[in-house]
Amino acid sequence: MSRFHDAAQFEAELRAIGEERYHDKHPFHILMHEGRLNPEQLQAWVLNRFYYQKSIPLKDASLVGRSENIDLRREWIGRVIDHDGRKPGEGGIERWLRLAEGVGLDRHYVSSCEGVLPATRFACDAYVRFVREKSLLEAVASSLTELFAPDLHKTRIDALLAHYPFANEGTLAYFRTRLVEAPKDVKFGLHYVLRHAETREQQLLCVAALRFKTDVLWAQLDALHHAYVSPGLVPPGAFRMENRA
Amino acid sequence: MSRFHDAAQFEAELRAIGEERYHDKHPFHILMHEGRLNPEQLQAWVLNRFYYQKSIPLKDASLVGRSENIDLRREWIGRVIDHDGRKPGEGGIERWLRLAEGVGLDRHYVSSCEGVLPATRFACDAYVRFVREKSLLEAVASSLTELFAPDLHKTRIDALLAHYPFANEGTLAYFRTRLVEAPKDVKFGLHYVLRHAETREQQLLCVAALRFKTDVLWAQLDALHHAYVSPGLVPPGAFRMENRA
Repeated sequence: MSRFHDAAQFEAELRAIGEERYHDKHPFHILMHEGRLNPEQLQAWVLNRFYYQKSIPLKDASLVGRSENIDLRREWIGRVIDHDGRKPGEGGIERWLRLAEGVGLDRHYVSSCEGVLPATRFACDAYVRFVREKSLLEAVASSLTELFAPDLHKTRIDALLAHYPFANEGTLAYFRTRLVEAPKDVKFGLHYVLRHAETREQQLLCVAALRFKTDVLWAQLDALHHAYVSPGLVPPGAFRMENRA
Repeated sequence: MSRFHDAAQFEAELRAIGEERYHDKHPFHILMHEGRLNPEQLQAWVLNRFYYQKSIPLKDASLVGRSENIDLRREWIGRVIDHDGRKPGEGGIERWLRLAEGVGLDRHYVSSCEGVLPATRFACDAYVRFVREKSLLEAVASSLTELFAPDLHKTRIDALLAHYPFANEGTLAYFRTRLVEAPKDVKFGLHYVLRHAETREQQLLCVAALRFKTDVLWAQLDALHHAYVSPGLVPPGAFRMENRA
């Protein structure tokens, strides 16, 4: 095992994971940002990604429920509230449903999660389990893809506005809000990980957790790409535009 | 909800799931059976499918550990023993490793599960969880893809022998053995499900469990097809022949 890394080295090691394997490099995102997704492909992305959005408060609340550290709980509960909102019509999930309506999907169909690719479920469920079952340190480390998210969100907002008629400040509100929320969230998470990974072994667990999370994100786009871009092999029972027009 | 099905109708309903969505219909299997997989694609299949094989005794032993029914336990424990063998050098996992060596893979590399696609892990782990967490009836129902397996195994043995130089009675011993084991196992499982699904609601849970299991199998081939056939998008960190020649 390599030697304990100081905070700066360890942070660089975590950031290098984003350089190597964050899903901004996935061809599906590249097609999206070049304006080359057709309406069905965009709908499939929004529909499947809803399942991920829906999973986020489950994993975050589970994390809060496992932490003896009141500072962590006080901070982390904000993520659940950001996502769920304080009342109907508010929150990140609601904003995602507005995006879904913007691309022409019915919000009840999207909320039902019918038509979601099985591979999306398997990946997102694996993430929720990971956060529920691994150490708190690994659970926090797995959230650190947020280090890389703001750049992707900025690129995405500009690209969607440039290329897709559905895009406007209303339909894209989810991403605008995340531009503010994610940096605040990740600042706490990164600080926590840098401080609580006290041995090289713990640092390597954090590295593995973050790599796991990049796998969760990448696998979702692989499944979308395979089903809806090439070779267009939609699994039995999954969303097809012709059935939901 | 539809009306309670008698045993014959319910069995027909379960068998129809195989007709509709068992993975014998997946293009990856069709390529395999037509002799059109190249060595890397075959290796990738064997390597990834090992992760599934490795998961089977975990799910079966978990099922035994949850059953108050001694008849079920006595029957089901045989599956674990079939798979693990009674001593080193025996059992289904060992036979799969011989297949792996037959296609040119190192058994230690395969056993390490390095290079397995994340999507394979997510799908197989979802299956193990399902069996651990759902009702015993649903857990048993999810095993009933074995109704459809012997035909696939027969096709596969003939096709591999016809098309691939590595294929012989030694490397294909796993499939030959399953031709005998699976019908015995599924006879018990089917009888159990037909008898213990006492309401239409329970029958529908069994239907959903079997559909879930077909999703688990299909998603594994989707991931292989996407990574190694078309568009050849191997996720970061997964097996490539050039790295393991």
